[in-house]
Amino acid sequence: MYAEVAGFYARQMRRLDEGDAEGWADTFTEDAVCRISTRPAPMRGRAELTAGARAAVAAIAAAGEQRRHMTGMFEIEERPGGILRVHAQTIVYATSASGESRVHQVCVCADTLVRGSERELLVRDRRIDVDGVPAGTDR
Amino acid sequence: MYAEVAGFYARQMRRLDEGDAEGWADTFTEDAVCRISTRPAPMRGRAELTAGARAAVAAIAAAGEQRRHMTGMFEIEERPGGILRVHAQTIVYATSASGESRVHQVCVCADTLVRGSERELLVRDRRIDVDGVPAGTDR
Amino acid sequence: MYAEVAGFYARQMRRLDEGDAEGWADTFTEDAVCRISTRPAPMRGRAELTAGARAAVAAIAAAGEQRRHMTGMFEIEERPGGILRVHAQTIVYATSASGESRVHQVCVCADTLVRGSERELLVRDRRIDVDGVPAGTDR
Repeated sequence: MYAEVAGFYARQMRRLDEGDAEGWADTFTEDAVCRISTRPAPMRGRAELTAGARAAVAAIAAAGEQRRHMTGMFEIEERPGGILRVHAQTIVYATSASGESRVHQVCVCADTLVRGSERELLVRDRRIDVDGVPAGTDR
Repeated sequence: MYAEVAGFYARQMRRLDEGDAEGWADTFTEDAVCRISTRPAPMRGRAELTAGARAAVAAIAAAGEQRRHMTGMFEIEERPGGILRVHAQTIVYATSASGESRVHQVCVCADTLVRGSERELLVRDRRIDVDGVPAGTDR
Repeated sequence: MYAEVAGFYARQMRRLDEGDAEGWADTFTEDAVCRISTRPAPMRGRAELTAGARAAVAAIAAAGEQRRHMTGMFEIEERPGGILRVHAQTIVYATSASGESRVHQVCVCADTLVRGSERELLVRDRRIDVDGVPAGTDR
């Protein structure tokens, strides 16, 4: 279970870091809801998730940066119906074109994962709280 | 075993990051010893651990920072009697109220874990060496 | 499998961080190839790996820094013949003698692991891409 969950996050985050917005959105259910504390409104469904990721990928490319997500500190709770509640932390690193690396953001993630048609894990609900963003701001 | 140990550290560190000093101390045995290279003396027992954590939580709040611990690089060794020796690394991140994140500390942890009355893991002995603190300083 | 792989990386990287160049090289096969995007040529075989690690350890010591590798985001794929393909990320932290910590490098690793004579994991092929180093530079 731990290995499967950790592997899921590794693949999912890598798609984002490699600019594959659509592939990233495919790791969510069709009707997924994703709330990020730095965004004014949640993203709902794969079309909005893809659009949100595309915009983020474009902004990062325009800034000449490479971003990488490192997710860890998994707390995994099994719920009835094959549902998993996962609490995790993600550190986002940014590296400039000149090779300077830094911590971009520190995030806490609370996810609900379910099984897709081929038993693969999918995010049905995600809430990301970014440290340093006051509660209530931009939500 | 790996999943249980990793989950233990995730829960334990989260209590500290969320300001739950007493809950954090409860993840140690009653007679635990915790040596941190930046402190002049070890903390012994839950009362000292709670007091130490409370002071740290208050200082961080006074500085207007959010701290997060990320522990990984687990090397787990089983010893007779259900004892686990765990070597790990912890990176402590700090985010200011204005949203700037940075690496606060890089730490190496050497722990002895034992089982409590409900088979839960507890720290009996911890030694934390913080990088950049010369050996012998403040010990 | 996950636990074994994660433990392998923890032990391997620790040897480097503790300055044990030869012990680090021993975690590769005799004929291993290691390509790092910041180096002009691959390192081939344990003698070159040891020499490369020794030079790195000496340079870090001369700079008065402590480096620590944190590897995670493992994607593990089993191949026929007991071969493992591992994709991972490594963050390298640096701490100065005065105790200032920072992100030194963000790296993506693609490894081929095989079994040694005692079934232990060994790296046969490693490719490390360091973020912020333009493709084609110094290769």
